[in-house]
Amino acid sequence: MKDEPTDAAPVMNGAESVVRSLHGAGVEVCFANPGTSEMQFVDALDRTGLLRCVLGLFEGVATGAADGYARMALKPAVTLLHLAPGLANGGANMHNARKARAPMVNLVGDHAVRHRGYDAPLTADVEGAAEPFSDWVRTASSPATFAADAMEALGAAMANPRQVATLIAPADLGWDAGGVVAPPPDTASFAPLDPVAVENAAQMLGPDTVFLVGGRVLETPKAVALLQGIAAQTGAKVVAPTSNRRSDRGAGRAGLVRCPYPIDMALQTFAPFRKAILIETVPPVAFFAYPERPSLLLPETCEQMVLTGIDGDGPAAVSALAAYMDAEPHVPGVALPPSPQAGTIRHDTIAAAIANALPENAIVVDESLTGGRDIWSATKAAAPHSWISLTGGAIGDGIPLALGAAVACPDRPVLTLQADGSAMYTIQGLWSQAREGVNITTLIFANRTYEILKTELFAVGANPGRSALDMLDLDRPNIDFVALAKGMGVPGRRADCVADLQRILVTAMDEPGPFLIEAMM
Amino acid sequence: MKDEPTDAAPVMNGAESVVRSLHGAGVEVCFANPGTSEMQFVDALDRTGLLRCVLGLFEGVATGAADGYARMALKPAVTLLHLAPGLANGGANMHNARKARAPMVNLVGDHAVRHRGYDAPLTADVEGAAEPFSDWVRTASSPATFAADAMEALGAAMANPRQVATLIAPADLGWDAGGVVAPPPDTASFAPLDPVAVENAAQMLGPDTVFLVGGRVLETPKAVALLQGIAAQTGAKVVAPTSNRRSDRGAGRAGLVRCPYPIDMALQTFAPFRKAILIETVPPVAFFAYPERPSLLLPETCEQMVLTGIDGDGPAAVSALAAYMDAEPHVPGVALPPSPQAGTIRHDTIAAAIANALPENAIVVDESLTGGRDIWSATKAAAPHSWISLTGGAIGDGIPLALGAAVACPDRPVLTLQADGSAMYTIQGLWSQAREGVNITTLIFANRTYEILKTELFAVGANPGRSALDMLDLDRPNIDFVALAKGMGVPGRRADCVADLQRILVTAMDEPGPFLIEAMM
Repeated sequence: MKDEPTDAAPVMNGAESVVRSLHGAGVEVCFANPGTSEMQFVDALDRTGLLRCVLGLFEGVATGAADGYARMALKPAVTLLHLAPGLANGGANMHNARKARAPMVNLVGDHAVRHRGYDAPLTADVEGAAEPFSDWVRTASSPATFAADAMEALGAAMANPRQVATLIAPADLGWDAGGVVAPPPDTASFAPLDPVAVENAAQMLGPDTVFLVGGRVLETPKAVALLQGIAAQTGAKVVAPTSNRRSDRGAGRAGLVRCPYPIDMALQTFAPFRKAILIETVPPVAFFAYPERPSLLLPETCEQMVLTGIDGDGPAAVSALAAYMDAEPHVPGVALPPSPQAGTIRHDTIAAAIANALPENAIVVDESLTGGRDIWSATKAAAPHSWISLTGGAIGDGIPLALGAAVACPDRPVLTLQADGSAMYTIQGLWSQAREGVNITTLIFANRTYEILKTELFAVGANPGRSALDMLDLDRPNIDFVALAKGMGVPGRRADCVADLQRILVTAMDEPGPFLIEAMM
Repeated sequence: MKDEPTDAAPVMNGAESVVRSLHGAGVEVCFANPGTSEMQFVDALDRTGLLRCVLGLFEGVATGAADGYARMALKPAVTLLHLAPGLANGGANMHNARKARAPMVNLVGDHAVRHRGYDAPLTADVEGAAEPFSDWVRTASSPATFAADAMEALGAAMANPRQVATLIAPADLGWDAGGVVAPPPDTASFAPLDPVAVENAAQMLGPDTVFLVGGRVLETPKAVALLQGIAAQTGAKVVAPTSNRRSDRGAGRAGLVRCPYPIDMALQTFAPFRKAILIETVPPVAFFAYPERPSLLLPETCEQMVLTGIDGDGPAAVSALAAYMDAEPHVPGVALPPSPQAGTIRHDTIAAAIANALPENAIVVDESLTGGRDIWSATKAAAPHSWISLTGGAIGDGIPLALGAAVACPDRPVLTLQADGSAMYTIQGLWSQAREGVNITTLIFANRTYEILKTELFAVGANPGRSALDMLDLDRPNIDFVALAKGMGVPGRRADCVADLQRILVTAMDEPGPFLIEAMM
């Protein structure tokens, strides 16, 4: 069943043809949680040595890491997952990647074709499990076309906008000889920019106009600066969605406002505007439906135009509009982060500590939810950094995102702003951080509650009793995150005051390897 | 939007009508990992106080606990899950419950009906995510029929065979007034036993006949004893599937052989037989397809007959056959567990320690995989106990199963035989064990490897190198399970030799509350 490890094996198996094709197309990393039906890939990865393999102890770690990797490397990693239940375990972070429009290729093993008709213990509908969390799904059908299928998956992932592609691989297609290496997919082009749209956008500009911008615009500081230049010239405002794939920001770069999460604040943000220009984003939608509140956040009377859609080249559209308007980049002058604070750890003091401690060129991973509400604005003049955050609302993304980002950018320190309740969904990711020796500092916002749910429960007018509070509080027992980290090989410390916190933060980010700080809020 | 907490609220909302109906139908426990779209249930559960609510810090804990509960309580708990990603997180243990044919009712929140058309961050196809892991799926459509839908879900769960039923609940159906309490579903009847089948089975009996028995037969010691009585009379053998929902066994009860997991041993088990009589089970299937091995485990030439199917009453069928054969229950005479051992912790010595330490009436939860291969046979003469195990091959079931079993049977000590790699999938469940104060002893089989995958990789003839071993080994860093347990409020100890292990086991199971033992293998 097995061929020898030569460079051009005459009887290459399906798994090896896929590994060689992925490598040929520039894929460098595999985040894996393999099982028996993926052993042929483990073998092919091992024999060829072409991809870096990173093991997650749970599938959500692998898919979340692939998302974080893609956001920073601007190309996909591949994941290796085990049948329908393994895929489902990775589904929540596939969902987050899909909402981020981050490219991802999942390779999911299934039973051998001849075994699929029997109701074996692990048999379930793999395609069905993939569909809700993938933009593209296919089951490979022969060793000869398996690599071509993988290249189609990669092409789908790197389409505009980026997508989550899932290729299901019956085990025998990997074992069997007859694999054929396939050429990389063509580079996807952007939807063309309509020159009339540029003119129309220019006509709409004024103090009652809002730019809604997402996607690659936020990853391109020059594009944000040009937008702020247009805004300075016309009185328009620039607003980004609440959660985004990535934003490159900080001192010396033009900032922008994000739409707040709370429904009334979100509605207030957009209330002043009569016109909206959308660039690489869609009209903003409330996170949930709330009584007597609309689902769409822009005022009903607001005129909307799409300068370029999510399939377009946002930065190019901004440049075209700026050229048409004769606008220059506008970057605010010298600004300073808020002063360091002493005393207890609160929303405002932790934000100041982070803004002051952040080293140059860091990557901030934000799953801080309620505890981190002041940090975005506090860090607008912090050292330049990339900010990546939970995009699909499926909590349990921070620790894996950080792992992937650190693998993509080994020279950049990573700071994870991590809500405690959410941390527990994929806490296993700390082990992979330790194994890979990545420079990630995980800052746990230990408020010992699902604070966001309490807010939501109070918002519907409830007066929660013991049983309801038990569903929302994380005390009884308190979680000791430093012990959890230690158990997985990650050193850590608890911080009880904000001055301590800032000191530990600076050291942790400066030193190599992972570290965990439990900030008692 | 809210009504007052009275017993017969004139404007009961949908959520309350569901909670009251579930309670009226005998449901007592809710394993919950709620989010915003389930706050109306949290509120209704709180106001009515009718169900015991147990919080899991991850959805797989909630669904796995519901499975363990159902196996011991013989009726379903309800789970509370949050949209498609939350459902997916619970999918693997729904899969295990489905393969166990354990009854489960999942209540999954979705966006309010008016919000579902928008692509909100958490929007995804909830029904699609439910289908691969559920036998019955419905989305509720009005507050007035919501409770009736829940009762249909409960009826589906309690059908013969038992099923996993998932009811999706748009948030507004829970908030809105107009809920109507619905009557419990009818008790499901069994498929009738065919008297001709009893005669036919009797004709088939002989030394080349195997009884394949599952389902309720294994939960009924008298039925197993009758089968062994028939076997003693005719020379037939009695074999159970590799993994089962529950088996009530131990000293003074008739035992039986399970089909081994390794393919060649499984084939050898069935090779001698020319006739097979199936009782509440299906023809056995190999876990995976292996080169040059069949998928079906019974010899091709083996004549098969179904005495009663998975929709039938196995114990009644056994009684009918025993009556026809004039057979008596056969229980072996006094037997003793293997002698206690000293020295290192190996497969055989740990099995002896467990067999000797097991207290009367314990519940054994088995997700020990390779490390526990000797325990089933070593415990056949241990104190009488119930044995529940991983049924669907989706690892990460042991810790949650134990939680649910302990909630169902607060007076019975629970011992979890837990492989280390599998433990990491749902390690968060330890926190819920601490919160609930349940008497669960988690025994970690710390071999620091996915041993089962190594076996599979060697089985296909690979000679794994560093990269492959990195995907299979759990060292680098070693996981400190005692630290992990401590971090979640569960005391623990490491055991380096088997005499220590047995001593700690006895104490841990005798004392109330959870405990974790890391057995260094």
